[in-house]
Amino acid sequence: MSTSTPVNGPAQWERLAERTLVSTRVLDVRGVLFRHPRREIEREFVVVAAPDWCNVIALTPDGRLVLVRQFRYGIDAFSLEIPGGVIDSGEDPVVAGLRELREETGFVGSTARLLATVHPNPAIQNNRCHLVLVENAIRSSAQEWDHDEEIEVITAPVDEVLAWAREGKITHSLVVCGLMHFESLWRARAGAHV
Amino acid sequence: MSTSTPVNGPAQWERLAERTLVSTRVLDVRGVLFRHPRREIEREFVVVAAPDWCNVIALTPDGRLVLVRQFRYGIDAFSLEIPGGVIDSGEDPVVAGLRELREETGFVGSTARLLATVHPNPAIQNNRCHLVLVENAIRSSAQEWDHDEEIEVITAPVDEVLAWAREGKITHSLVVCGLMHFESLWRARAGAHV
Repeated sequence: MSTSTPVNGPAQWERLAERTLVSTRVLDVRGVLFRHPRREIEREFVVVAAPDWCNVIALTPDGRLVLVRQFRYGIDAFSLEIPGGVIDSGEDPVVAGLRELREETGFVGSTARLLATVHPNPAIQNNRCHLVLVENAIRSSAQEWDHDEEIEVITAPVDEVLAWAREGKITHSLVVCGLMHFESLWRARAGAHV
Repeated sequence: MSTSTPVNGPAQWERLAERTLVSTRVLDVRGVLFRHPRREIEREFVVVAAPDWCNVIALTPDGRLVLVRQFRYGIDAFSLEIPGGVIDSGEDPVVAGLRELREETGFVGSTARLLATVHPNPAIQNNRCHLVLVENAIRSSAQEWDHDEEIEVITAPVDEVLAWAREGKITHSLVVCGLMHFESLWRARAGAHV
């Protein structure tokens, strides 16, 4: 599949300028001015600008995943998720994933690598979310929560976690998406062991 | 798994008040004041408030999925996705899914139902995204694009679309998440046909 623009297909708008509508601790909202290359019109679209994020699939030696349960202000309720957070400026995604895992759960791993990269929402957000796989994860240090973080750490067998995603016990779309990316690797290994 | 709060686990903060930091056509950003029930502190957190969204798995009679490719202003690039959009106030999610499918692609279906509901981002967004399954989808009408929408419609076999999600050709997290929810149904049917 080519990513070039067909002659009569959707046009690639030209990005002209931007203005910040509001700036907050976790995101900025910008009005970004685009011009259509053929229709001679300009439009301002709303874009949420945020740093890249990371999510972590942390696999224990006995085939369990490390999960965190915390109160989430967006939905005003608890949410069961994989560990993750905001990547610091200039920080490598894998390093960020290992850091967030350690800070939120106290788990560290022997190997770590980037498994996938997605866009949380290409329509209105400019950032990416990197999925980091950490293997042989074991609890080895105390949690170092950010200010106002309170996190319950849970481990559960991989297949149970995948079922929770499918049954709707895990509702965070980026977590479900991360579990789908991990699942093919997991199934391939399970197949190799049969 | 209970959703109650363990005595020493993460606390359910109390939502006290909110103020709008910016209001736009597609989302509002609010500062929401919460109080910790035990620590006697109050904090304002940033919440992106948006209407609920819908995404549509549209399955053709010959086992293909209907996809849309469009320019996305958030990432300033093209994105391959399933159809979807904003649910109107008071609109049923399944009705919204059928409407978005018809408007964006010209496809209509014989049956439709809600397959799953997720939170795009529980940490900072208050809304949900509903996944609607439309079966026996066939092209029967012209597209009715919203102002500034230009959409290329593609169909591809289900297994190819699932592979695209795993390989990173589809990067929209809500789309990947929707495909994971659909996949178990698809595999169960394939198994039943063996």
